[in-house]
Amino acid sequence: MKKIKVTVWNEFRHERSDKTVKEIYPEGIHNTVKDILAECDDVEVTTATLDMPDQGLPDEVLNNTDVLIWWGHMAHGEVKDELVNKIKERVYRHGMGFFALHSGHHSKPFRAIVGATGDLTWGVEQQQIVWNIMPQHPIAKGIPERFGLFEEMYGEPFRIPQPDELIFASWFKNGNIFRTGCTFYRGVGKVFYFQPGHEICRSFYNPNVRTVIKNAVHWLYTELPDNVKDLSCPQQKVPVTELMEAEKEF
Amino acid sequence: MKKIKVTVWNEFRHERSDKTVKEIYPEGIHNTVKDILAECDDVEVTTATLDMPDQGLPDEVLNNTDVLIWWGHMAHGEVKDELVNKIKERVYRHGMGFFALHSGHHSKPFRAIVGATGDLTWGVEQQQIVWNIMPQHPIAKGIPERFGLFEEMYGEPFRIPQPDELIFASWFKNGNIFRTGCTFYRGVGKVFYFQPGHEICRSFYNPNVRTVIKNAVHWLYTELPDNVKDLSCPQQKVPVTELMEAEKEF
Amino acid sequence: MKKIKVTVWNEFRHERSDKTVKEIYPEGIHNTVKDILAECDDVEVTTATLDMPDQGLPDEVLNNTDVLIWWGHMAHGEVKDELVNKIKERVYRHGMGFFALHSGHHSKPFRAIVGATGDLTWGVEQQQIVWNIMPQHPIAKGIPERFGLFEEMYGEPFRIPQPDELIFASWFKNGNIFRTGCTFYRGVGKVFYFQPGHEICRSFYNPNVRTVIKNAVHWLYTELPDNVKDLSCPQQKVPVTELMEAEKEF
Amino acid sequence: MKKIKVTVWNEFRHERSDKTVKEIYPEGIHNTVKDILAECDDVEVTTATLDMPDQGLPDEVLNNTDVLIWWGHMAHGEVKDELVNKIKERVYRHGMGFFALHSGHHSKPFRAIVGATGDLTWGVEQQQIVWNIMPQHPIAKGIPERFGLFEEMYGEPFRIPQPDELIFASWFKNGNIFRTGCTFYRGVGKVFYFQPGHEICRSFYNPNVRTVIKNAVHWLYTELPDNVKDLSCPQQKVPVTELMEAEKEF
Repeated sequence: MKKIKVTVWNEFRHERSDKTVKEIYPEGIHNTVKDILAECDDVEVTTATLDMPDQGLPDEVLNNTDVLIWWGHMAHGEVKDELVNKIKERVYRHGMGFFALHSGHHSKPFRAIVGATGDLTWGVEQQQIVWNIMPQHPIAKGIPERFGLFEEMYGEPFRIPQPDELIFASWFKNGNIFRTGCTFYRGVGKVFYFQPGHEICRSFYNPNVRTVIKNAVHWLYTELPDNVKDLSCPQQKVPVTELMEAEKEF
Repeated sequence: MKKIKVTVWNEFRHERSDKTVKEIYPEGIHNTVKDILAECDDVEVTTATLDMPDQGLPDEVLNNTDVLIWWGHMAHGEVKDELVNKIKERVYRHGMGFFALHSGHHSKPFRAIVGATGDLTWGVEQQQIVWNIMPQHPIAKGIPERFGLFEEMYGEPFRIPQPDELIFASWFKNGNIFRTGCTFYRGVGKVFYFQPGHEICRSFYNPNVRTVIKNAVHWLYTELPDNVKDLSCPQQKVPVTELMEAEKEF
Repeated sequence: MKKIKVTVWNEFRHERSDKTVKEIYPEGIHNTVKDILAECDDVEVTTATLDMPDQGLPDEVLNNTDVLIWWGHMAHGEVKDELVNKIKERVYRHGMGFFALHSGHHSKPFRAIVGATGDLTWGVEQQQIVWNIMPQHPIAKGIPERFGLFEEMYGEPFRIPQPDELIFASWFKNGNIFRTGCTFYRGVGKVFYFQPGHEICRSFYNPNVRTVIKNAVHWLYTELPDNVKDLSCPQQKVPVTELMEAEKEF
Repeated sequence: MKKIKVTVWNEFRHERSDKTVKEIYPEGIHNTVKDILAECDDVEVTTATLDMPDQGLPDEVLNNTDVLIWWGHMAHGEVKDELVNKIKERVYRHGMGFFALHSGHHSKPFRAIVGATGDLTWGVEQQQIVWNIMPQHPIAKGIPERFGLFEEMYGEPFRIPQPDELIFASWFKNGNIFRTGCTFYRGVGKVFYFQPGHEICRSFYNPNVRTVIKNAVHWLYTELPDNVKDLSCPQQKVPVTELMEAEKEF
């Protein structure tokens, strides 16, 4: 069976410096996400962290990744611009899926790939209700009409382009709302942003969050034909009309 | 294995009255489309035609259909409004996929479901080049950057809402262009329009057209959770905040 | 100065039968909306109500309307299908703007024009916070980041197609959220849905609601070139390439 | 009268080095575009070129620009990344309109703002037919159903995100099609891409192209409320629900 190659990238700083976070995610958020995906037969998961050589993503890893999951927060600024460009190119030209979790809204790759500041309003952890507004989307498969979380507040205005699909949107107790699950087609790849996953909350153990993560990885995977992968502004030297006749396609 | 239940509906008039069409599609367009889908292990196909009892779609058929494929042309006006409403409701409330082929752009169900006149400009059969502009879409899987057809000209302006995804667009020799492959999310279902398939052309034997049809059926299929299916403007009698506490979801 | 011809259509039943409503909108909601638009020099307003002859919209009125505003609730079913079709055609083929207020989400013309059931969840009047998520949109001009209302709860899932632009979205105290301000391009016209305006609330006196209504009327107005207005699936008899040469356009 | 402050930025290299281009645009493309906008009473135009100090856009110019028009081609690489970031920030956070003409599809600011490689296929100058597929859009006001040009071929696949609005699309004689007029909402600003304008063609003298440019500048202009302009991921320290009560907004 062809397997989807997923790399879960995590900043992995909070879990080593903060006791509360360590208790919730003792092996790091990346390993919890890895465990979620281990439930899928057709997915093969690797993890990578900021403090590994090449910030966890040497070319041989990145170029072998079908879907890159990204969790970062306190060290966004440390991610090298050169790496950001490589990630962006891999999405744009090779169709790698990019999946930003939670504070990944402000990560360099998300902002560069999508074309956004990713700014939002944030506040204390509180009651959240996630509403499923696009149940026919593959990412919403198996998700009920609504489900509850206890999460850091992320609120509108969220400075993103209009999503291609707005799948989930949320209510927060103190008066805010948020576009919680958004897709963006970029280059020949796909992007998904999903808001839950604050380091001191337990959302990655929530069954609905886990289902969304599994669904999203499958939706983000694109198997591209070879002729698409190397496109880079080519000149059309022979009229297409002539080429078509030579190719006898019709 | 769970199978996708597809019903291929065909007006089936041209094939019985026109010698040329009969030669190209001797068993009717519906049976050629059925043959295409017979290549998929996970699809179960039924056919239906306008002149069958209940215009081919009695409730027991319609309510058992996951994806309805529609080819009609000369007899759009004969399709009963009551049936059109049933089809629309099945898409809107039960998530049935609706797939309009070629002149289905002007069929009553397409117009009613999508919200459009479906008007376009048309002209003689001529060279067509289909461009694949969204290769990462599941419906475009396996389709090259471009492919050729010899088809009836369908041209802009095509009076449809902005598609949710514009996957294919085409060039016609005499100066026209067309949005050839378009998706629309409607209700809790999905809709796909695909332009090739004129009755005196041979497009349903073209390998790329066949691939698109197979891909589209899979993309159109939605397995909805039970709680979505019966929605009909309910009153929220108890505050959701109270319900959520009772449900102890967070 | 060219004036935008607006017709404000109101069911006008609640105001005549319910004492509370009568106190809030003594001349009917249509006249309050008319007063709002009277503040615009470039708008000319007429009102129409369900119980007038031809349900308030004889051809000479409808065909002379640039933007039709619609408030209906308890008598949606009484609106004649023939009138609904005329309204739809005027939007689709002549570019009339259609502006559905509040319970107009379930009106026959909104559902038919947009292609939706318009179903939603509703509940008691409560605190609402409207968030402005697309401040660069002309309809949001002059609207702050958020504003408060006391309104009937309208909640997701709201069964509409993905809006072309989602301008406002709302928080309701009891746990619901809603897509409050949505645009839809349909035919050669435009549609706007705006949720505030329950008959026992006072939203039409709220300055932000009033600003949105004035902005929306201007955005909805389309001055179409004559050649667009009569399109109805014409045949292209002469190749466009030949026509273009005759026209010497380049 | 409030005037829209437009800066027309031009690389201004072809016109100085190539005799053919010099003959067509003797004062430079920027001055021809300036002349077009001089026809609008409510627009105030400045020009800027690559070889001016600060590449023509010192802070006092950029921060005083409502809509920036960009024509570049052979020297995209010379534009400084620092300037690109300033332009992007001005669109994202201050709502400046950005209008890329022709080969501006591959300019650094267009790619960074929109989130795209901007790759396309290109070929020799040839007959082009522009189709107006969204006549209700303000940018299409006064534009006929189609018009002709003689232009450098720009063809699909064009690697851009799905446009928020696809207003114009084109046919090229040799078999290509192209998304000629596309809008993108980004940050709190707006972006428009318009394909005509090759340096050895005469499109900037075409009356339809001139109308589109004038329309686009008006559409791109956003007058933002002050509270939007300085947003940068603020913390919500007091619950909005409490703020709203203090503000007595409802």
